[in-house]
Amino acid sequence: MKFLLTTFCLIATFLSSVLGQSPQWNEVAPGVWKARIGTPESYDLISASGASPKLEAIAGLPRKAFPLFKENIKASVTDGKTYLAFPLEKEEQLYGFGLNFKTVHQRGRILRLHVDHYGDSDNGRTHAPVPFYVSSSGYGVFVNSARYLDVYAGSGVRKDSRNPPPATDRNTDKNWSARPYSDAVEILVPAEGVEVYVFEGPTPLEAVRRFNLFNGGGALPPRWGLGFTQRVERLYTAADVEKEAAEFEERGFPLDFIGLEPGWQSKSYPCTFEWDNTRFPDPAALVSSMLGKGIRLNLWLNPYVSPSSSIYKDILPYTGSHTVWVGAVPDLNTEKGRSLLFGKFRKEAIDIGISGYKIDEVDGFDEWLWPDVASFPSGISAEQTRQTYGVLMQRHITAIYREKNQRTFGLVRASNAGGVSYPFVIYNDNYRHEDFITALINSSFSGVLWTPEVRASKTAEEWLRRMQTVVFSPMAMINAWSSGTKPWSYPEVTEQVRQMALLRMQMMPYWYSAFARYHFDGTPPFRAMNLEPGFRSDLSRVTENTSLEENPYQEAVRKEVKDQYMAGDYLLVAPVFTGQTSRKVVLPEGRWYDFYTGAYVGNGEIISVSPGLEKIPVFVRDGGIIPMMPARMHAPRAGEKTDIEFRYYGEKPGYFRLYDDDGETFDYEKGACSWREVRIERQNKDGLKTSISPAEKGRPDLLGKITWKKMTP
Amino acid sequence: MKFLLTTFCLIATFLSSVLGQSPQWNEVAPGVWKARIGTPESYDLISASGASPKLEAIAGLPRKAFPLFKENIKASVTDGKTYLAFPLEKEEQLYGFGLNFKTVHQRGRILRLHVDHYGDSDNGRTHAPVPFYVSSSGYGVFVNSARYLDVYAGSGVRKDSRNPPPATDRNTDKNWSARPYSDAVEILVPAEGVEVYVFEGPTPLEAVRRFNLFNGGGALPPRWGLGFTQRVERLYTAADVEKEAAEFEERGFPLDFIGLEPGWQSKSYPCTFEWDNTRFPDPAALVSSMLGKGIRLNLWLNPYVSPSSSIYKDILPYTGSHTVWVGAVPDLNTEKGRSLLFGKFRKEAIDIGISGYKIDEVDGFDEWLWPDVASFPSGISAEQTRQTYGVLMQRHITAIYREKNQRTFGLVRASNAGGVSYPFVIYNDNYRHEDFITALINSSFSGVLWTPEVRASKTAEEWLRRMQTVVFSPMAMINAWSSGTKPWSYPEVTEQVRQMALLRMQMMPYWYSAFARYHFDGTPPFRAMNLEPGFRSDLSRVTENTSLEENPYQEAVRKEVKDQYMAGDYLLVAPVFTGQTSRKVVLPEGRWYDFYTGAYVGNGEIISVSPGLEKIPVFVRDGGIIPMMPARMHAPRAGEKTDIEFRYYGEKPGYFRLYDDDGETFDYEKGACSWREVRIERQNKDGLKTSISPAEKGRPDLLGKITWKKMTP
Repeated sequence: MKFLLTTFCLIATFLSSVLGQSPQWNEVAPGVWKARIGTPESYDLISASGASPKLEAIAGLPRKAFPLFKENIKASVTDGKTYLAFPLEKEEQLYGFGLNFKTVHQRGRILRLHVDHYGDSDNGRTHAPVPFYVSSSGYGVFVNSARYLDVYAGSGVRKDSRNPPPATDRNTDKNWSARPYSDAVEILVPAEGVEVYVFEGPTPLEAVRRFNLFNGGGALPPRWGLGFTQRVERLYTAADVEKEAAEFEERGFPLDFIGLEPGWQSKSYPCTFEWDNTRFPDPAALVSSMLGKGIRLNLWLNPYVSPSSSIYKDILPYTGSHTVWVGAVPDLNTEKGRSLLFGKFRKEAIDIGISGYKIDEVDGFDEWLWPDVASFPSGISAEQTRQTYGVLMQRHITAIYREKNQRTFGLVRASNAGGVSYPFVIYNDNYRHEDFITALINSSFSGVLWTPEVRASKTAEEWLRRMQTVVFSPMAMINAWSSGTKPWSYPEVTEQVRQMALLRMQMMPYWYSAFARYHFDGTPPFRAMNLEPGFRSDLSRVTENTSLEENPYQEAVRKEVKDQYMAGDYLLVAPVFTGQTSRKVVLPEGRWYDFYTGAYVGNGEIISVSPGLEKIPVFVRDGGIIPMMPARMHAPRAGEKTDIEFRYYGEKPGYFRLYDDDGETFDYEKGACSWREVRIERQNKDGLKTSISPAEKGRPDLLGKITWKKMTP
Repeated sequence: MKFLLTTFCLIATFLSSVLGQSPQWNEVAPGVWKARIGTPESYDLISASGASPKLEAIAGLPRKAFPLFKENIKASVTDGKTYLAFPLEKEEQLYGFGLNFKTVHQRGRILRLHVDHYGDSDNGRTHAPVPFYVSSSGYGVFVNSARYLDVYAGSGVRKDSRNPPPATDRNTDKNWSARPYSDAVEILVPAEGVEVYVFEGPTPLEAVRRFNLFNGGGALPPRWGLGFTQRVERLYTAADVEKEAAEFEERGFPLDFIGLEPGWQSKSYPCTFEWDNTRFPDPAALVSSMLGKGIRLNLWLNPYVSPSSSIYKDILPYTGSHTVWVGAVPDLNTEKGRSLLFGKFRKEAIDIGISGYKIDEVDGFDEWLWPDVASFPSGISAEQTRQTYGVLMQRHITAIYREKNQRTFGLVRASNAGGVSYPFVIYNDNYRHEDFITALINSSFSGVLWTPEVRASKTAEEWLRRMQTVVFSPMAMINAWSSGTKPWSYPEVTEQVRQMALLRMQMMPYWYSAFARYHFDGTPPFRAMNLEPGFRSDLSRVTENTSLEENPYQEAVRKEVKDQYMAGDYLLVAPVFTGQTSRKVVLPEGRWYDFYTGAYVGNGEIISVSPGLEKIPVFVRDGGIIPMMPARMHAPRAGEKTDIEFRYYGEKPGYFRLYDDDGETFDYEKGACSWREVRIERQNKDGLKTSISPAEKGRPDLLGKITWKKMTP
């Protein structure tokens, strides 16, 4: 009997491993379903990031039911790997799978999710290859693995497909396609088990919010983080830095933090993490002098330890088998490795008032970083270390600032799932303006932030066009240290650039509230149109090249909207790129208004706009309220009251939740923050009926003078 | 005691798995060393290909000793994967790792060896990603795995490096490099064990020869395979084919075989493998009529079975879980799958006299082929199936022809180690002429053949330049069916093209002897300069772009010789590309002579040549003998005698081994072949002393009239 049972179990195991079984789903938070396939590894994206769910906020999201037919989800473990298959309906579109730069729609793609510098192709190698996708049908799927995952996002056609496409004859059938319809997302996890999550919507945005909240909610930067930042030449001295700040002040350009590049250190690539005392004889004095002017300092580094660093000898046993630029690679999964590295950061920089970091080269290239054959003392594989290094750096640097009850806002080259709550913005070396905007769109599906930084420009037009988009982004960064370009380098557009910079500052209450919603509600502050109600993607396939010589399989090119996005609750931003004088904008359903004039522009239609050089087209949803403060050079200090003008657009009654806190500490997590409800509606012929709720009792009240402005005539 | 021993063993296992052990090497053939790491998988490249070593020929190669310090080779099994490390000396150069298109030198590269259509980057994804490399120090290493291998060919720097590079400071040190020197080739095999081979040289060419002979020796095509081949429009009828052949004849262009594209079948993509009876009402009659004219037929196919094929229903249980263009994918590792598929090929085509196949789409793209999540009834994984499908197709098609004692020569899109003895030439959809030549060079390191086929051209010049290189290649193929270009389509170069085509035919004895050496001695008929004695690669690194904006890590570009190659024993071919009127040629040490005039051109130096449009620069090594037959339209038939003119170049005594056999059967394997020794030396002022050994007793004697020609005055 026992023998029979064993045999039966073996056969059952064999069959389930070959055919795939439907996993068991457990609801681990409201609308968040988890399945364990095989034996999941203990080191995964959630454990690496240390993310913990905001259960209360998740509970506040609307519910429906498990969003898929469970029996159409298959999983099995074979050949040492875990196979996953999720169903796809015919019209379903997929978004996400990390920070892609060229495409928004991911259905049909094959990706190998691998942390890397983005290499000009949406193939899964990117700075944040987050294994999470969102369906247009209103749900999300997350594979909690720190391995390189092979994703077939609706590309393979199974023999046992539920809806098999017909075979066609290429000899004579004009409908033949090189890529027949596929009804499954299939994923290969190179491990003998994995945790998988399904996030309910019911809308795609709600699936994203659930995912973000499950990973701890979005980052809330300090208020100064939303001001302007300028990175200075890599070998600048303390005096050069002071001079640069003074020039911004003199010329009336806002500036909240300055970034020091490699030369702040005695050696770089690999790094000492120690100040160069010829260029920076008294770093503490510099930090303090700058803080006095309302300007913070951010430090570039990569985490590879120079033999000349004081921690080198001690940290060596806690570093990987392979070096990066001959520097030791700290194993951030060893307690000792962490305490030595981050202890050094704290002592040299954070304790003297450095506000944050730019963490470079934790993404790629393969030629520079540890190879997959490397080993680490913690026993975590090279592959898993690669997938999580950026998140680990963010996590442990944030922890130091948290200990000091002081917020940070920095830059990082790599992230992954679980990193959403860490206040870092991803950047890279690419510089195609259009791609930067597509990345900004895609960042919203993956719980990461992205800056379309301004580095250099060939013309005044380009400089201004890039500056316009950076103003409508998570971090308004000028990173032109290498080219030496300054905001005022193109005299013919200097004033327009300055006006854009001031607009960024004026909008700070709007941005800050948007980030608060990221943190508390999980709503990405900058996000894809595809997450916006009433947006129709209008995806089409066009075979542009019918030459069999040049396009032997007559592959179609996908046309998609990847150059406009939502910013905060109400704004639709449609950047104009160098060389363009007009562009098309796809407006979601509902009435839309010009941000600058308040004029009605359209409703659920494609409009063409010719904004002139000085303007970036921005549109406001009907009923939109945009809180603006007076233009200023630096973010308000903690406790400083600001006047606010509430601009109201359109016809519908408007509603806005204005967020406030001290802007600098983590006290908001303990309740030291306020949400005020702002309501505006039209009354009589020209009047407005307005109201704003008072700050809750004992909560910050930082509102100065309030004014109301009806933008739409 | 037992407990202590167990503990000791566990600790030893742990240490060896972390630190890596030196493997045990066993000499499995003279100068061929094998090590088994962990538990190698039973399905590997050698078992898939069915290759068996030519031990006698291997024994004839010179010997030295195991070419590396054994203790510097490390291997371990961790995290379910096998880690391999081979040492590298400072000046050592590496070649191979399969069919690369842009680079010859592979040191410093990171590759993921993965059968695929070549995607414009030498990253391991190619038609034949053979896991074999050759060192300039004169040895080869082969990893016998059908998995996707991650190769770090001297890119990572280990902490415990024997020769660590110094850490430098990028802030101020101008010698800082983004890629410091690495002293190891490291390879990750995603399996818990693997067989590894080391091949002695002592020269790089001898290491290659050993590798080729160990895999069964190179393919010896039928003699007709070395003539011209033309592929015809995909929907051509039998009558169209006859007409095309007649036009070649009329215009005096040689033609040995015609390729029929998809339309020979009733349906394609997926395929029925059945004749379309409207276009081809009597295939046997067509084959027979063409054979009467000395022209054979080759059939295009991909192996994916259309639901309309008669074998579909029967083969379905022996096909993979996923389809390709909705066609079933035969599992070639099931006996039944093979017998159904190849039985069909035999019945429909081979038994009526079809001479061979063009096996398409067994390489990629990922979007079309079965995904890595697919499963196959044999239990061989999708990954292993992908790595070996091209080889399996070659193996089993060759087997049918072998059964019929009839040689074949065809085309294939994918191959791998072990496939060297199969008479198939790799081709692809790329069309960059320069890359085609680099691929021809690299094919020689990997035991594969490659054709720089001619498809289309923008100008007469390009048409002629491409035709010139195809003439000096393993298969002289015109594949212009899609563009409809014919050899005579550019009237201004028609005669030059015809002369080149006739030259190919005249040189047939030279090509046939070169292929015989491939088969019997393992020497690639077309090969890299780097395998040639006296060649200095002159590799240099030049940082061309010093802008930090555009090239932030100031990466150097490698300059290497990748546009000239050796053909047969004596010829150096230096193609001229469209737009060039002159080019540099790097001559190995020794005296070299112009192929056409016999004039001395240089010795171990870089020369500049301006050959004019009608000539491709070709040079002959001192003492070179080139056997030429009269120009003709088709290859000699079995048993047909041919006149030969032996052209002699230079000053040194010349030596050539002329090969002959019936040209069509496998009888040469049973000894029905002859090698004749040809010797020529200068005598007196103008005379030549010549000799040729008689055909061995009972061996073919196909020599007609012999003439001798002194080319160098």
